[in-house]
Amino acid sequence: MQLHPLKLVTIVTEPVLKDHLLPKIIELGATGYTCYEATGFGSRGARKDFGGENMRIDVVCSPDVADAILTFISHNYFENYACITWVIDVSVVRGARYMK
Amino acid sequence: MQLHPLKLVTIVTEPVLKDHLLPKIIELGATGYTCYEATGFGSRGARKDFGGENMRIDVVCSPDVADAILTFISHNYFENYACITWVIDVSVVRGARYMK
Amino acid sequence: MQLHPLKLVTIVTEPVLKDHLLPKIIELGATGYTCYEATGFGSRGARKDFGGENMRIDVVCSPDVADAILTFISHNYFENYACITWVIDVSVVRGARYMK
Repeated sequence: MQLHPLKLVTIVTEPVLKDHLLPKIIELGATGYTCYEATGFGSRGARKDFGGENMRIDVVCSPDVADAILTFISHNYFENYACITWVIDVSVVRGARYMK
Repeated sequence: MQLHPLKLVTIVTEPVLKDHLLPKIIELGATGYTCYEATGFGSRGARKDFGGENMRIDVVCSPDVADAILTFISHNYFENYACITWVIDVSVVRGARYMK
Repeated sequence: MQLHPLKLVTIVTEPVLKDHLLPKIIELGATGYTCYEATGFGSRGARKDFGGENMRIDVVCSPDVADAILTFISHNYFENYACITWVIDVSVVRGARYMK
């Protein structure tokens, strides 16, 4: 079994950002993404008192691409949008195909 | 990039618990949560032969809050409801805002 | 709190595989699974230029069962279907019930 250590970046934010964020994720070097509908509630930071529709985006990518995505989101969305973003270490089947 | 080590608690259980569990998660110290619709099947423990509608709840929180949530769920739901709960180590952008 | 180290296997693939894959996951030793609807885009490997409906399947299981599932998917789906599969280390509440 060929497993490759990569990063799983998860972004939960407002659906209004979808058209802006998804092309940017590819532009920053990811080879794909998966989106889920969600609902959420948060009471801190930009997400203060926010409840309602959310979208979740998962991206499996190299550490460098993960860093680029996190930096973009931190600089562009955190002040004005409900947004939580985290990274997890994952082992990916045939993972080399998800690295540029 | 400011990343903070935190815990991601994931609970997959019956939707009937939603009104009971979500306020409890905030009461136990979490600053927010995200919910997803799901379907599931399980054949062990309380989830024995259970198939059908599930909800998934994700909570990003400190280790102490994660422990409080896990203890609450283990004591209150595992005997009588289909429920699977796990914890993952995550690195969170501007993570300090998710700690009380 | 009784936490058990296990594996979380996540498969994101085409919904057409559902009837084939879900019984196989149980046959390979898992005690259950959770399914989510998703949309996705990918531009590498079998997922090349694929965009549209996806399903996500999460399985919490022992390392041996995880390996069996990953091997099955790698051998049967990667050539002909859009499919991304990864594994994460998780700590599971009362995790012994998810091991055969």
